[in-house]
Amino acid sequence: MRTLQEYARIVNDRLAQIPEITPEGSAGIGKLPGLLSASMRYSLSAGGKRLRPCMLLAAVELLGGSVEDALDFACAVEMIHTYSLIHDDLPGMDDDTLRRGRPTNHVVFGEGQAILAGDGLLNCAFETMLAQASCRLDRAADSLLAMREIATGSGVTGMIAGQVLDLWCEREKTGGEAELECIQYGKTACMFIYPLRAAGRLCRATEAQMEALTAYGRAFGLLFQATDDLLDVVGTVEDMGKTLGKDARSGKLTCISAYGVDGTRALVERLHAEAVRALDSFGPDADFFRALADDMVGRTK
Amino acid sequence: MRTLQEYARIVNDRLAQIPEITPEGSAGIGKLPGLLSASMRYSLSAGGKRLRPCMLLAAVELLGGSVEDALDFACAVEMIHTYSLIHDDLPGMDDDTLRRGRPTNHVVFGEGQAILAGDGLLNCAFETMLAQASCRLDRAADSLLAMREIATGSGVTGMIAGQVLDLWCEREKTGGEAELECIQYGKTACMFIYPLRAAGRLCRATEAQMEALTAYGRAFGLLFQATDDLLDVVGTVEDMGKTLGKDARSGKLTCISAYGVDGTRALVERLHAEAVRALDSFGPDADFFRALADDMVGRTK
Repeated sequence: MRTLQEYARIVNDRLAQIPEITPEGSAGIGKLPGLLSASMRYSLSAGGKRLRPCMLLAAVELLGGSVEDALDFACAVEMIHTYSLIHDDLPGMDDDTLRRGRPTNHVVFGEGQAILAGDGLLNCAFETMLAQASCRLDRAADSLLAMREIATGSGVTGMIAGQVLDLWCEREKTGGEAELECIQYGKTACMFIYPLRAAGRLCRATEAQMEALTAYGRAFGLLFQATDDLLDVVGTVEDMGKTLGKDARSGKLTCISAYGVDGTRALVERLHAEAVRALDSFGPDADFFRALADDMVGRTK
Repeated sequence: MRTLQEYARIVNDRLAQIPEITPEGSAGIGKLPGLLSASMRYSLSAGGKRLRPCMLLAAVELLGGSVEDALDFACAVEMIHTYSLIHDDLPGMDDDTLRRGRPTNHVVFGEGQAILAGDGLLNCAFETMLAQASCRLDRAADSLLAMREIATGSGVTGMIAGQVLDLWCEREKTGGEAELECIQYGKTACMFIYPLRAAGRLCRATEAQMEALTAYGRAFGLLFQATDDLLDVVGTVEDMGKTLGKDARSGKLTCISAYGVDGTRALVERLHAEAVRALDSFGPDADFFRALADDMVGRTK
């Protein structure tokens, strides 16, 4: 299996070629060929680590599949993740002005255009998967089941449900551990679980493999979020590229507000153990995924 | 073939059953089971005529296909149309407070929740199509090509491109006939053309049939928009269920601003003739679609 950096390079190379998000891609809309693609690319190229698409590709290789066949599904996952950040940062939502060390999309392009850039990325994720799938109609059923996993993860019982609960708890200044778990499962874990499950569908994984990927995705996703919450308190702006301490100041529901710093450190250890245990059946082939979980814990040390 | 009202009843019955948008559908997100589905249903059940999904179903029957197999694709088209209205009405976009005679989504649920209701409907459209397609894996290739048509219509070279250009022209107080044509093609015509093309894919239409559906969809969509622009000037609030004369006051680019009332009436006649001509090869079987075009012109008389 490759390194995270190698997978990220493959994803970035492909993202740069997807016609709808190249400068030439939105030709034919009058005097304005570039604004939509520019606003989508602005956030898409903001220097994320491409963790979710890389994990999808690594899972495909773990299961004996081909990176090339899965690549547009991986890019779609990154587009969906990026759209969710753009909309999350909007004044009507979290009202954030800094993301990955740069002004957020609506600060640069205006609120209306940022809404459309997000809509465009979500729609384009499906356009991209469907374009790839249309080239491989002999594998149409696998593609369809993979797309369905991704749509479920980003959907109204997954990521969007988490966003709704998060927004509501913040507005009503309410919520406890039960709400926190639902929010972090929906907003964060689902976009790890379901892309991994999509990899499983593309490779016709067994039910046992699907369950292992799901368990790892859940534990890793919650670990990722707990680590993020912890670093909002113990990290530095340079490391994180975003406004720090904001969660605490805004009274936002986080692992810190629910469990405190020490409780969150204990949770991080527990989720790490859970993630690693979920990989047992894959043996040493899954070292890529073990290392990811280790790195996550390492950032908080 | 059935009447528009019969198709609309079929669509409404099915929309009421789609699990993600029933009150029980978003269970499992803490104390907040109903808010997301309620906000999606609020706009989805605001009393639209279901024109786009009905036309998809009618095209399926015209081509000898089964309404049952196409029904979730039709519902998806209505969800996409509805999401686009919710986002279009947002303060960062058109800032409308009245739609189909009721307060707009963000007026009732707040801006953040309205953004998420729109996101939810767009994502749910794909969830719904993929769920249906997963039950018919023997027809996976047809489903996939149909979904691709719909995604293209609502996408970054279709509907969203039109929205971007519209927003930009309004903000910059610019644009002429060329921009107007692009906006109305993207924002309005694409969501007629591509659902009709999706019907064609589901029924394995011939290339000649696909071209006829495309030509009709384009002419009908532009006719629909020209009629709408005309009624904004010559219609009544009761007929339209929305604020009238707003386009003119806001200096928005419309058929009226570009061609005047008489010029728009002439355009309506021309587009009607074009729509009807596109149906020639289907013979009397296409009377449903002829009647739709006739009705559109009739509203302006």
